[in-house]
Amino acid sequence: MQVPKLLVSRRIRATPYTPRVEALGVSGYSVVNHTILPKGFQKTIEEDYWHLKTHVQLWDVGCQRQVELRGTDAAKLAQLMTPRDLRKARVGQCLYAPMIDAEAKMLNDPIILKLAEDHYWFSIADADMLLWAKGLAVGMGLDLGIDEPDIWPLAVQGPKSDDLVARVLGEQVRDIGFFKFRVCDFEGHDLVVARTGFSTQGGFEMYPEGFSLGRRLWDALWQAGADLEVSPGCPNLIERVEGGLLSYGNEMTRDDNPLECGLEQYCQLDGSVEYIGLEALQKIAESGPERLIRGVIFDGEACPACQHPWPLTIENQQVGYVTTAVWSPGFERNVALAMLDRGYWEAGAAVTVSAGDGSHRQGIVTELPMQAL
Amino acid sequence: MQVPKLLVSRRIRATPYTPRVEALGVSGYSVVNHTILPKGFQKTIEEDYWHLKTHVQLWDVGCQRQVELRGTDAAKLAQLMTPRDLRKARVGQCLYAPMIDAEAKMLNDPIILKLAEDHYWFSIADADMLLWAKGLAVGMGLDLGIDEPDIWPLAVQGPKSDDLVARVLGEQVRDIGFFKFRVCDFEGHDLVVARTGFSTQGGFEMYPEGFSLGRRLWDALWQAGADLEVSPGCPNLIERVEGGLLSYGNEMTRDDNPLECGLEQYCQLDGSVEYIGLEALQKIAESGPERLIRGVIFDGEACPACQHPWPLTIENQQVGYVTTAVWSPGFERNVALAMLDRGYWEAGAAVTVSAGDGSHRQGIVTELPMQAL
Repeated sequence: MQVPKLLVSRRIRATPYTPRVEALGVSGYSVVNHTILPKGFQKTIEEDYWHLKTHVQLWDVGCQRQVELRGTDAAKLAQLMTPRDLRKARVGQCLYAPMIDAEAKMLNDPIILKLAEDHYWFSIADADMLLWAKGLAVGMGLDLGIDEPDIWPLAVQGPKSDDLVARVLGEQVRDIGFFKFRVCDFEGHDLVVARTGFSTQGGFEMYPEGFSLGRRLWDALWQAGADLEVSPGCPNLIERVEGGLLSYGNEMTRDDNPLECGLEQYCQLDGSVEYIGLEALQKIAESGPERLIRGVIFDGEACPACQHPWPLTIENQQVGYVTTAVWSPGFERNVALAMLDRGYWEAGAAVTVSAGDGSHRQGIVTELPMQAL
Repeated sequence: MQVPKLLVSRRIRATPYTPRVEALGVSGYSVVNHTILPKGFQKTIEEDYWHLKTHVQLWDVGCQRQVELRGTDAAKLAQLMTPRDLRKARVGQCLYAPMIDAEAKMLNDPIILKLAEDHYWFSIADADMLLWAKGLAVGMGLDLGIDEPDIWPLAVQGPKSDDLVARVLGEQVRDIGFFKFRVCDFEGHDLVVARTGFSTQGGFEMYPEGFSLGRRLWDALWQAGADLEVSPGCPNLIERVEGGLLSYGNEMTRDDNPLECGLEQYCQLDGSVEYIGLEALQKIAESGPERLIRGVIFDGEACPACQHPWPLTIENQQVGYVTTAVWSPGFERNVALAMLDRGYWEAGAAVTVSAGDGSHRQGIVTELPMQAL
């Protein structure tokens, strides 16, 4: 299939980094939260994969918009919106948190940054969670401000991230713990720096306020990274699939509940915390999920992109579907994320993948993140 | 600027019509409501403009997703979500309706289809209004179902629309009034057919359920239209600007209120109807809006696409900004939609347009829709 062009208007927002990624040869975009997300550069996806695992990259993830809750009822609303227990959350912590509706269906899977006892950012995947938060607050008469601040996340990912960021923000960044953040100084401005990111290669996500500061931060990191082989990058499909990192809208939608998505560890089910969807989720937990997200490793030549779910079958009976698939140079096989029905999700189970090109290929169900077979 | 490519995944949905528009040479997409929207075909935008004003076109507007309210409190929630007075709305009516938040800021501008006293569709522009509706309903404890049905709108636009649609659905469609709909029969299935659409050239929007029915409807219309010079199409930027049709996210955002958008006729301000944002909107109405959306016609060669607002100035003082602009072959000038500050929005006022290419051009403020100067 021919790759179509994306026509940008005011409605589909550029980021502070757009001129930089265009100068560096961005080859395509996706759209997330009404904002463009680079999807590739001049390297092949495999070259990019090895680069990400070896060096350091700057990612324009300005599309990771923040839903800011601030005020008297901020903590109350934050807890209502997630089954994750926030009672012991501390300022400076980043919390991966499923968001569900009253039927316990997945609405999003943000990282929550607790900035103060009455101040939270939900760093969201692709859906207007601002409207969900505002609807709840208006409906319940809660007392807080809810807004999308002028914050444009920039990620630094890869094993040399600490070295690069320390050059720009100081040695203190090395002490930032996993899924913790600190407020650093950059050119006299507060800058939230978190040890998070949509890869498993280590690194940071930074939250500059405003286009001007964001662009200066990009430039400072870029200039400091020349001898570290810094490169522009973006979430790498191979690395993300192998690492079992889920993408809302791809691996999970409003049709799925968090137990099906393997997120039980982020769900407080004992009733000690009140949140929307608690009753529905407890009911699902009683009988257990009907399906589960797993990995699949499968044979044949490099598969095409998975634009619609591909059936997974055993003896012509459908037992699940692939949501994302890509050739892995590490496994020298194709790797996929998939939803498997109960009874068929055990690691090692043999399944047939009906890839989008009409081929049928032998596959094996795996744990996530994937381990070498 | 090079036009970047759009990379499609499960998260960015195709429509029933995607294979048809790709076979017909779609040249680019935008993304609306997590769904692809064709933005052009093999004709130039000017050829397409004349075709739309002369013949008939099929538009893949599957991205116009429906927020369905159904049940006891459906009418109550529908009214809470818009300042438009729905008390006299009748089944079979389509109502253009601003949606606002508690601060009276624009959230969306759907067409509401009243299907039954307890059953509404909000046919939405680009934002997840499902989440706003669900948040309000959960917060207020309302009793209704809220969902996105499997409906994929298909538009027929242009002066030959009645002739084309009558061939497929029968002569009765000629009797459908402006902004009214009827449930027609297509291959034994109910099909909502509305006399609406995002052009001022006349036509219909149809609401088939499911991919299979949608594709058969496309094919039936396509085959019936050969001698009518039917063509694939999409909202035409020239026609839309001249006609003063606003695009949520482009002409108006969450920063604007409906009075600034010229939508006062859709706002019940006397307090006889209860809706979210009433108090804030009444306060704005007391002093009048601070700015207003207008047309601007301006000189010089064909302007580039407006991807970020362009300043409008009078003697170096900013008095507004352009949100959308394009060359009009009818006016033989550039035409634009713009937000003008109070005191500067009278038709005939002279302004300077700072177009994105660095040029400064002389322009004139106009009413909407635009009339020949």
